[in-house]
Amino acid sequence: MSVVVQQIARAEAQVIAGLAECGVATVHEAQGRRGLLASYMRPIFAGAQIAGSAVTISAPPGDNWMLHVAIEQLQAGDIMVLAPTSPCEDGYFGDLLATSAMARGCKGLIIDAGARDIRDLTKMGFPVWSKCISAQGTVKETLGSVNVPVVCANALVQPGDVIVADDDGVCVVRREEAEIVLAAARARMAAEEEKRKMLAAGVLGLDLYKMRGRLAEKGLKYV
Amino acid sequence: MSVVVQQIARAEAQVIAGLAECGVATVHEAQGRRGLLASYMRPIFAGAQIAGSAVTISAPPGDNWMLHVAIEQLQAGDIMVLAPTSPCEDGYFGDLLATSAMARGCKGLIIDAGARDIRDLTKMGFPVWSKCISAQGTVKETLGSVNVPVVCANALVQPGDVIVADDDGVCVVRREEAEIVLAAARARMAAEEEKRKMLAAGVLGLDLYKMRGRLAEKGLKYV
Amino acid sequence: MSVVVQQIARAEAQVIAGLAECGVATVHEAQGRRGLLASYMRPIFAGAQIAGSAVTISAPPGDNWMLHVAIEQLQAGDIMVLAPTSPCEDGYFGDLLATSAMARGCKGLIIDAGARDIRDLTKMGFPVWSKCISAQGTVKETLGSVNVPVVCANALVQPGDVIVADDDGVCVVRREEAEIVLAAARARMAAEEEKRKMLAAGVLGLDLYKMRGRLAEKGLKYV
Amino acid sequence: MSVVVQQIARAEAQVIAGLAECGVATVHEAQGRRGLLASYMRPIFAGAQIAGSAVTISAPPGDNWMLHVAIEQLQAGDIMVLAPTSPCEDGYFGDLLATSAMARGCKGLIIDAGARDIRDLTKMGFPVWSKCISAQGTVKETLGSVNVPVVCANALVQPGDVIVADDDGVCVVRREEAEIVLAAARARMAAEEEKRKMLAAGVLGLDLYKMRGRLAEKGLKYV
Amino acid sequence: MSVVVQQIARAEAQVIAGLAECGVATVHEAQGRRGLLASYMRPIFAGAQIAGSAVTISAPPGDNWMLHVAIEQLQAGDIMVLAPTSPCEDGYFGDLLATSAMARGCKGLIIDAGARDIRDLTKMGFPVWSKCISAQGTVKETLGSVNVPVVCANALVQPGDVIVADDDGVCVVRREEAEIVLAAARARMAAEEEKRKMLAAGVLGLDLYKMRGRLAEKGLKYV
Amino acid sequence: MSVVVQQIARAEAQVIAGLAECGVATVHEAQGRRGLLASYMRPIFAGAQIAGSAVTISAPPGDNWMLHVAIEQLQAGDIMVLAPTSPCEDGYFGDLLATSAMARGCKGLIIDAGARDIRDLTKMGFPVWSKCISAQGTVKETLGSVNVPVVCANALVQPGDVIVADDDGVCVVRREEAEIVLAAARARMAAEEEKRKMLAAGVLGLDLYKMRGRLAEKGLKYV
Repeated sequence: MSVVVQQIARAEAQVIAGLAECGVATVHEAQGRRGLLASYMRPIFAGAQIAGSAVTISAPPGDNWMLHVAIEQLQAGDIMVLAPTSPCEDGYFGDLLATSAMARGCKGLIIDAGARDIRDLTKMGFPVWSKCISAQGTVKETLGSVNVPVVCANALVQPGDVIVADDDGVCVVRREEAEIVLAAARARMAAEEEKRKMLAAGVLGLDLYKMRGRLAEKGLKYV
Repeated sequence: MSVVVQQIARAEAQVIAGLAECGVATVHEAQGRRGLLASYMRPIFAGAQIAGSAVTISAPPGDNWMLHVAIEQLQAGDIMVLAPTSPCEDGYFGDLLATSAMARGCKGLIIDAGARDIRDLTKMGFPVWSKCISAQGTVKETLGSVNVPVVCANALVQPGDVIVADDDGVCVVRREEAEIVLAAARARMAAEEEKRKMLAAGVLGLDLYKMRGRLAEKGLKYV
Repeated sequence: MSVVVQQIARAEAQVIAGLAECGVATVHEAQGRRGLLASYMRPIFAGAQIAGSAVTISAPPGDNWMLHVAIEQLQAGDIMVLAPTSPCEDGYFGDLLATSAMARGCKGLIIDAGARDIRDLTKMGFPVWSKCISAQGTVKETLGSVNVPVVCANALVQPGDVIVADDDGVCVVRREEAEIVLAAARARMAAEEEKRKMLAAGVLGLDLYKMRGRLAEKGLKYV
Repeated sequence: MSVVVQQIARAEAQVIAGLAECGVATVHEAQGRRGLLASYMRPIFAGAQIAGSAVTISAPPGDNWMLHVAIEQLQAGDIMVLAPTSPCEDGYFGDLLATSAMARGCKGLIIDAGARDIRDLTKMGFPVWSKCISAQGTVKETLGSVNVPVVCANALVQPGDVIVADDDGVCVVRREEAEIVLAAARARMAAEEEKRKMLAAGVLGLDLYKMRGRLAEKGLKYV
Repeated sequence: MSVVVQQIARAEAQVIAGLAECGVATVHEAQGRRGLLASYMRPIFAGAQIAGSAVTISAPPGDNWMLHVAIEQLQAGDIMVLAPTSPCEDGYFGDLLATSAMARGCKGLIIDAGARDIRDLTKMGFPVWSKCISAQGTVKETLGSVNVPVVCANALVQPGDVIVADDDGVCVVRREEAEIVLAAARARMAAEEEKRKMLAAGVLGLDLYKMRGRLAEKGLKYV
Repeated sequence: MSVVVQQIARAEAQVIAGLAECGVATVHEAQGRRGLLASYMRPIFAGAQIAGSAVTISAPPGDNWMLHVAIEQLQAGDIMVLAPTSPCEDGYFGDLLATSAMARGCKGLIIDAGARDIRDLTKMGFPVWSKCISAQGTVKETLGSVNVPVVCANALVQPGDVIVADDDGVCVVRREEAEIVLAAARARMAAEEEKRKMLAAGVLGLDLYKMRGRLAEKGLKYV
């Protein structure tokens, strides 16, 4: 059954903005090392760091019809997340769809398949994290669904979950946990700032984190 | 049998130049979604967008002798296309061969294997699309052929075919079809320009392409 | 048995500096086409070209404890080389560890696993060659060893060996052979300079390297 | 947070038995082409065809401690499903664990990592579907969870879901849908029986499925 | 444009039968080490050794409609060769299609994608060489072509070419060359028989092939 | 420099035989979880379980000349270990070389590349562990070395080291450590026998290994 869920809950804008500032590695740690998409999901250009509410898309291999359907469901600040129903490398998404998505305020695309028009997307500043880059065109023949739970690059993404993406990859945060994860992420960043200064000053992690005793206990030998 | 075919037909220069302007995704679409090389063929640096006549090379794994032979066959504007006779990652091509190829007016290299001296090639502005980057040296012991049909990265390339390559990958156009493909590509670009404006203005693809009826007919449910 | 070897021999500083100048492809050729790590080892940013003495780390999958131990063993100019004891993609290394390593004068990291905080590492100018980029966090539970021989990305690295790394990948030079390899690499560079000029002037490799006779002898046919 | 959920709902035994009889391809089709695990999940020996309730395991890379914990939670007929928290190839499972699992009535293991003692497991008739075969040993240092939802080989598996596995791979059926899926699968099998006879008698699919009209309409040309 | 070419030339039956007897490795050598499909093309069961005329199929990813069209074009002894128009792992082919193909005398399937119903296909003795095994179902929405040249697993296959397949993989022989290749293959087999006896008797290849002189000349040192 | 080392030390025959009996997983554990080759090294047929002294071969990609040289160096019970100097899938080894190797008493081949004539090798009972199966032929043009240290499938193998191989993969044992590793392996097997009985009787690993306390201490929650 192919459905488009039109009403989805989203996290609060300032929570999403806060998660974007923290970045993927920090958010991933803050929520207990969960939520990463597979490492083959790479940005098409370096330097983008975004967060947004997931508008999810389940689409057949080589068929990008549902992207058009999904764009109508976008609200400003959303991120599209496309999971093909079987492994696919085709270029579902290019500059025309990006133009349309940007007109709706879309912040980016996460796609476990290919993207194309890389030069144009880069000029437009529309970030995409994808499995590969491929010019391969797609058809519009078979339905899929929009805003249903999907597994994208080995991670479960529910509509309205917060997607965080940067040069380290992509992480998903459950919408219900977004606020608490942000608090934990900020606490982590603050704690890291202190550590960074000490490490920069030459203090060893062995001493800063008091590891020597436990290492000896485990049996580490210095020769 | 190892042969070097010295006379090959080439497409007209302005047709080739036109295809370069259109780029890979458009050309691929214009010829009916055919001709793409595998998506693992990636440029060693971003931003190059070229087209040229294929001088093809069939070479043994780990043996770059035929590149020297091929360079003599180059005319200004040509692109070399090397397919190893079995899968190989070695670095067949580096800055010296690039220097020689550039002296002949060669525009780039497509190689289903490795390249090296990436920093130098980047400085020289000599673009290469390859399976990988590898410093691994090669020998000069076993013959291959130049200007015979090859299958490169899962695509058939005949000598004189037009190669189009950019950040989206690599596409091959049959020499005999180059002119008609160019016409179709230009028509496509013109049509896209109009669509781009409407999409940028917020018109949805669902409306622009009149998809709503067919989606309903196929059974898409909005909930 | 988990050990930390505290005293390792290193090559002379000017030999190491010389190898850095020559770069990976030249050094690899100069030592008889040996010593390359697998081509999947890629730099996290383009343009770094370094050499240094290997401080080796054998670490369990998903456990970065030994990195802290290794940092204490670093001398200025060293490069850390981490080989997991089984295949792993986790992000063992990020900006905090880089801060600590830089405070000790470390020049870079070679890791047959993942790294994270790519944007920060890039800003800091701390180069890493890795199998992948992954934000996945690691634990500190199981011992490994520091400064023992490791096989990293299919190459044997002994502590104190000279690591050379640039945009072409990573190469290891035995410490005992470093001086003689440098001499051979410099000779090669000098010889290449001459060839480069001739090739740029349009002389063919076929003539420069006197290949025509041997090609004919092997049976190459021009048609 | 590491938890062991001790009470999980299971589908009815005869429903599970029915799904086992239908096999993976039929069940997958019957539930709308959903629920397949990635195709790299292969059986360690040919010919096993099973179904059972999923006892799920989330475990760190290279750490098989949670398997011992999970075995206590097994009821006769269950299938263990292990998803590592990051990609791993280690051999988490061998003949001793299989002996223990069989003593609890466990029917098999689905593991997105490695297994070992293949010869013994084959002799014991204990089927495993895994990403790879690896003798690599694992530690018991870091907690995970048992009977929480996991994403295993790109498919969401909830504790108590029905796992169906055979030579075609692995499919997961939501517990709540198991009965209806079984009915659909049986209907499909019955319908296929009729078709199989006609096809064996030489009737073409083109005629049996009345495809000729639609093919012509789409523009297929016979030349 | 989607076409079905109804008339294709085939090699003579006894030539095809002869090539089947020779097997893949011998045929590949006999035609100058050409024609192998990529090594990821593996048989679904061991022991089949076949040859037949290629009925080629170009099909979209995840769409098996053209298989039904192709079956009508089969003559007894033919082998179907399916190349998807972009990379795909879906299970295009299962026991119903095999039943239909066998009713037409089809000898096997070569598919650069997935197959399913492996247990049934094995029982039926219908051999398939595929990229993977996957139960993933496909649609019937988009046209492709039958009996046009295709690139399958990195090898060019023209309709009517002779396909040879066994446990070593798959090889394609140009129809026009089939007779001469068979002669060369038989000569090779005869020559190998003699060599096999001598090697079995303990004669070294070094002596049998008179390699010692050339090895010494190249500089091999015994220490 | 290409060399053939003619004298290598070997472990004692009964130690080697003992290691064969223990198998890969046990031996790997007994030596501290070291020495495994990459998991992509798979046997061409199931059921072989061997051990032998390594005669190592370093060979160029696509060149099997050194196999002939190595065969002369074989003593009864040896195992050949071939590492290509760069990644290669070609079929270096088939039934003729196997005939020759068997005539010298060779027990098997470990090759980080391809093998062919799989049906014949299976009939002959000559086991091969390889990266892939490929009929691709190789040349005899470039020297390599025999009985030098090689890195094969990410593991260091020195001539005379003991290779153990079975359905779980391949493990290398340092010659000097072979006796002590055998003792440890046997002790492990004896200990496992006891555990197997208890586990088969329904004792849980949690109790047998006294894990409950440490799990609770680490914070595992039962809910």
